[in-house]
Amino acid sequence: MNIDIRSPLDMHLHLREGEMLARIAPLSSMSFAGGVIMPNLKEPVDTLEKVHGYRKAIEEQCNPDEFTPYMTAFFRCYSAAELQALRSAIIGIKLYPAGITTQSEAGVSDFSGIEETISVMEELQIPLLVHGESNGFVMDREKEFLKIYERLAKNFPKLHIIMEHITTADAVEFMDKYPNISATVTLHHLFITLDDVIGGLMEPDLFCKPIAKTPRDLGALQDAVLSGHPRVMFGSDSAPHPRQKKECCGCAAGIFSAPVALPMLADFFVKRGKPELLQGFVSDIACRRYRLTPVNRTIRLSQQSWRIPELYNGVKPFGAGCEIGWKLATEKN
Amino acid sequence: MNIDIRSPLDMHLHLREGEMLARIAPLSSMSFAGGVIMPNLKEPVDTLEKVHGYRKAIEEQCNPDEFTPYMTAFFRCYSAAELQALRSAIIGIKLYPAGITTQSEAGVSDFSGIEETISVMEELQIPLLVHGESNGFVMDREKEFLKIYERLAKNFPKLHIIMEHITTADAVEFMDKYPNISATVTLHHLFITLDDVIGGLMEPDLFCKPIAKTPRDLGALQDAVLSGHPRVMFGSDSAPHPRQKKECCGCAAGIFSAPVALPMLADFFVKRGKPELLQGFVSDIACRRYRLTPVNRTIRLSQQSWRIPELYNGVKPFGAGCEIGWKLATEKN
Repeated sequence: MNIDIRSPLDMHLHLREGEMLARIAPLSSMSFAGGVIMPNLKEPVDTLEKVHGYRKAIEEQCNPDEFTPYMTAFFRCYSAAELQALRSAIIGIKLYPAGITTQSEAGVSDFSGIEETISVMEELQIPLLVHGESNGFVMDREKEFLKIYERLAKNFPKLHIIMEHITTADAVEFMDKYPNISATVTLHHLFITLDDVIGGLMEPDLFCKPIAKTPRDLGALQDAVLSGHPRVMFGSDSAPHPRQKKECCGCAAGIFSAPVALPMLADFFVKRGKPELLQGFVSDIACRRYRLTPVNRTIRLSQQSWRIPELYNGVKPFGAGCEIGWKLATEKN
Repeated sequence: MNIDIRSPLDMHLHLREGEMLARIAPLSSMSFAGGVIMPNLKEPVDTLEKVHGYRKAIEEQCNPDEFTPYMTAFFRCYSAAELQALRSAIIGIKLYPAGITTQSEAGVSDFSGIEETISVMEELQIPLLVHGESNGFVMDREKEFLKIYERLAKNFPKLHIIMEHITTADAVEFMDKYPNISATVTLHHLFITLDDVIGGLMEPDLFCKPIAKTPRDLGALQDAVLSGHPRVMFGSDSAPHPRQKKECCGCAAGIFSAPVALPMLADFFVKRGKPELLQGFVSDIACRRYRLTPVNRTIRLSQQSWRIPELYNGVKPFGAGCEIGWKLATEKN
């Protein structure tokens, strides 16, 4: 049996830069017709020139007829003229609280100073993508940030706000209060809890931000996705780190899932008896919410026992070594 | 200024075996007049012969006139005759739920089958030391285990039960309900929360079982200790791992703190304005609760800026590289 997915999209993707970009971008292009590219490079992507430069670097690695890099700009206080100029080059602007995750030092530390920029974004209909975590206790960060989401959603009712990589039952519940809120859910947050990260041995390969939460939170995310929630989209947050950064003492956050996302999602939706909802989760809902018309491309998944490789171009993927029931039809091994 | 501590005791200590025992036992002996020695060796210490053998191995590394190894046996269903024979050779019996931590596979999986052994222990006044965690969600394990503590405390009111290495406000609150319950608190659980383990980078050196909990839990532990709680004793749970086991993917739980415990505790109690409570926490309370008369030995701490070494005999200690205000008078560097 096969499942054909029309123009799958990864609505939250880290492609990095330089040599790592060259290694991993083609792996996203193999599975997806497009991806929302995060702007937290070593030097944040926060000018039109940098957006163009980064897009060009990505297009050198993936054929733009097959994979569209939906570019984002790194949130800062932009002038109206800057936003006007950026508008057609980006899909949205990504806001990071300062220092909250990998390469986010240039992010927002004073949320009272951002309203002018956001007001112009609302006017110009530029979506706001948010890493929504406070700097509080690690298990409470997402919940504590909800009050900021609430203020934004209320004050800017025509602004499309995307709660990126949600991890809690609280976030799922919250998003239903405001129709201008969407959310992305990652692959790994549909599978793991904090138990998998530190409940047995400590597992650097499952360390990510936001951290995976409780069994109740996992259940709420799965339920939202398996109900076909009309504002919940797939965004892998796939984020490679070289091996040595994941294994040495004091390791970095990030899970690399781009090349395994579609097969694992097919396995998940089929096992839960909801294969018909996969197309919506990985494409249609995003197209509706963002008003996108992606590259017309079909990705075929085959129902076939497949052992996930230990490494893709030197990066360990989520689920490495596990056997699942689906694979990309184009997957070699 | 100096603080002299009379016969400091570490009421929860892992000395391992073989080459690691030789490396670390002298470091406990430098600071402490005695320690309660955990029995979870590769082959559990669960016969009188093994208790004698392990004590002998320890005494080859530490002069028994200076450091008393208070031996424990690994809990299993013992006959009355076995317990009678063990009685004078041990300070107590340590119960591990099966598989709950390092080398605990031989622990208890069925708590309904243990009452007969425990009943004889009560009769013979052999204390029961417990690693009190369920096999549930990592942040709830200690709380979930309280119902087992409750059953034991109620059913065996003359049994001295020690809740080892408590980490939660719930445990602190619970212990006040039963006068036959004591608790140990580690060094690291007076200093860290889950934030330190996974809130920034992932820190294998702070990975331990039970895992460090929330800021509220930390506060409750500190309050219990700084109130001079008459049933709360110091037990380091110092547990060395060779470097490669802490740094590679999927790392083991355990924090090595024996050689730094007294200086860090002095720093803690002095900074909190309670230096007079240190003697009780690290010795007197344990002597009262266990009815011990330890080796008469005084350990002097000097108020002096001291940078904690990166390694002690190849093992990284808790607080490595930090500067604190106290050191052992005998510390070389």
